[in-house]
Amino acid sequence: VTRVACQQVAPRIGDLAANRELSVRAIRDAVAGGAGIVVLPELVTSGYVFGSREEAASVAIAADDPLFSDWAAQAARGPAVVVGGVCERGPDGRLYNSAAVVDGSGVRAVYRKTHLWDREKLIFEPGDEAPPVVDTPAGRIGVLVCYDLEFPELTRSVALRGADLLAVPTNWPLVDRPAGERAPEVVIAMAAARTNRVFVACCDRTGTERGQKWTAGTTLIDEQGWVMATTEGEGSAAAEMDLPRARVKTLTERSDTLLDRRPELYADVVAAAHASSTSRKESAP
Amino acid sequence: VTRVACQQVAPRIGDLAANRELSVRAIRDAVAGGAGIVVLPELVTSGYVFGSREEAASVAIAADDPLFSDWAAQAARGPAVVVGGVCERGPDGRLYNSAAVVDGSGVRAVYRKTHLWDREKLIFEPGDEAPPVVDTPAGRIGVLVCYDLEFPELTRSVALRGADLLAVPTNWPLVDRPAGERAPEVVIAMAAARTNRVFVACCDRTGTERGQKWTAGTTLIDEQGWVMATTEGEGSAAAEMDLPRARVKTLTERSDTLLDRRPELYADVVAAAHASSTSRKESAP
Repeated sequence: VTRVACQQVAPRIGDLAANRELSVRAIRDAVAGGAGIVVLPELVTSGYVFGSREEAASVAIAADDPLFSDWAAQAARGPAVVVGGVCERGPDGRLYNSAAVVDGSGVRAVYRKTHLWDREKLIFEPGDEAPPVVDTPAGRIGVLVCYDLEFPELTRSVALRGADLLAVPTNWPLVDRPAGERAPEVVIAMAAARTNRVFVACCDRTGTERGQKWTAGTTLIDEQGWVMATTEGEGSAAAEMDLPRARVKTLTERSDTLLDRRPELYADVVAAAHASSTSRKESAP
Repeated sequence: VTRVACQQVAPRIGDLAANRELSVRAIRDAVAGGAGIVVLPELVTSGYVFGSREEAASVAIAADDPLFSDWAAQAARGPAVVVGGVCERGPDGRLYNSAAVVDGSGVRAVYRKTHLWDREKLIFEPGDEAPPVVDTPAGRIGVLVCYDLEFPELTRSVALRGADLLAVPTNWPLVDRPAGERAPEVVIAMAAARTNRVFVACCDRTGTERGQKWTAGTTLIDEQGWVMATTEGEGSAAAEMDLPRARVKTLTERSDTLLDRRPELYADVVAAAHASSTSRKESAP
């Protein structure tokens, strides 16, 4: 059983030094609390609400930045694995909304968000590689960032590649919801967990940044789709996850969530985007 | 705006005549109440818990059965469109767990469930055709049956083909869930609605059949993923759905739930099943 901790902190926009301190402290605290996997919010190194690409560029860091050595040093004390959001300057010089996977040995993987949300498209390049599934002693960690989670064909794909846990750094902008309901992103995460029989750990941020309110909706979910832990405001949510349970896809004697799939019926899902966009633009009658 | 009604009835196993009367009355009541679309449970013509293939065969009906004329006659009084579950004897003589789409003119489509649940595999053949999207004056109706809904690549596919509403005849066997939670199938339906921006109408059954308890979880959901109506026991749930709203896939100025897809990243979803099943059978460490 692995203790998975999500550290719901409030990064400061554009303040690399403060966010470095914040993230290192968050990892240290989680590892001290026994976490084997630590998830931090999206763009925890930089904050989110950039006014321009230039502003984001001014705090973008490369995958060999000393920050990751600091994360690795804290991870080594567990040992633990850290998944956290990074405003990344890629090897091509472009900006990416990335998530780094770091263990005691250093950076294990960098995932560049492939589904950019709204104004992120003005700042970042979308990644061109599918989310990684990183094999660790604790289990296989699939990495998504925020809006990626809302594409069920993507979460399915990551599950098919063997992920036990989806680790999802997020910055969920607060949206309206009916009284008594969970944030819609959490409902989507619960369904992703249950339909794929994988654990999910969404680490949201808190605070208000340049007028943007956040959901602060950090949620850990078991492989049946039920909520294990949440937190409010600046805080930590953690749950003990028996990650190998995610390798049992059997539902009943004759049902299996992956083997019952009929891939030959899903061709539309991978058809070229321009084909579907034509019908999309059709107006209502 | 279209009134969509789900008639949560309790079919009697093996009693074609009683179920015919039950289904015709359910349609009549819904149409009298102003419904433009009426959804009935899975296998409403026959009941569900068959002891053998032979027993199911004894109550299987063809798509030209007079029952559908009765449904059509009631539909014509709306006019309305009916989607209801049928224990079907196909043109090939085999048994299918089907859903018929019937309007005042007769049978518009027959969908044969493609994802069979558990012991259904002992009774029925799986359908080989993707769910239909039936164009009606009220809107475009995509048809799934029960367990189909738990395959997010399938619901996505139906949405990509232009469905405004997923009409889902179901028989949900009652399963454990934490106190205060909705049935897990409802959480999955809410996520399917929101991630695809489509309406969803799941019509469950009620009663206990040969010891099997049902969820009686009928739920209508709007295109934002929020519950519009439910019912308990034998009853009807209905909601006024502005179905053309499902054609607006735009989320923000720069975000669109379908156009933001990256089909080139989802190849795993359509890879041959045997490839994924190999990794599935890997044991936990």
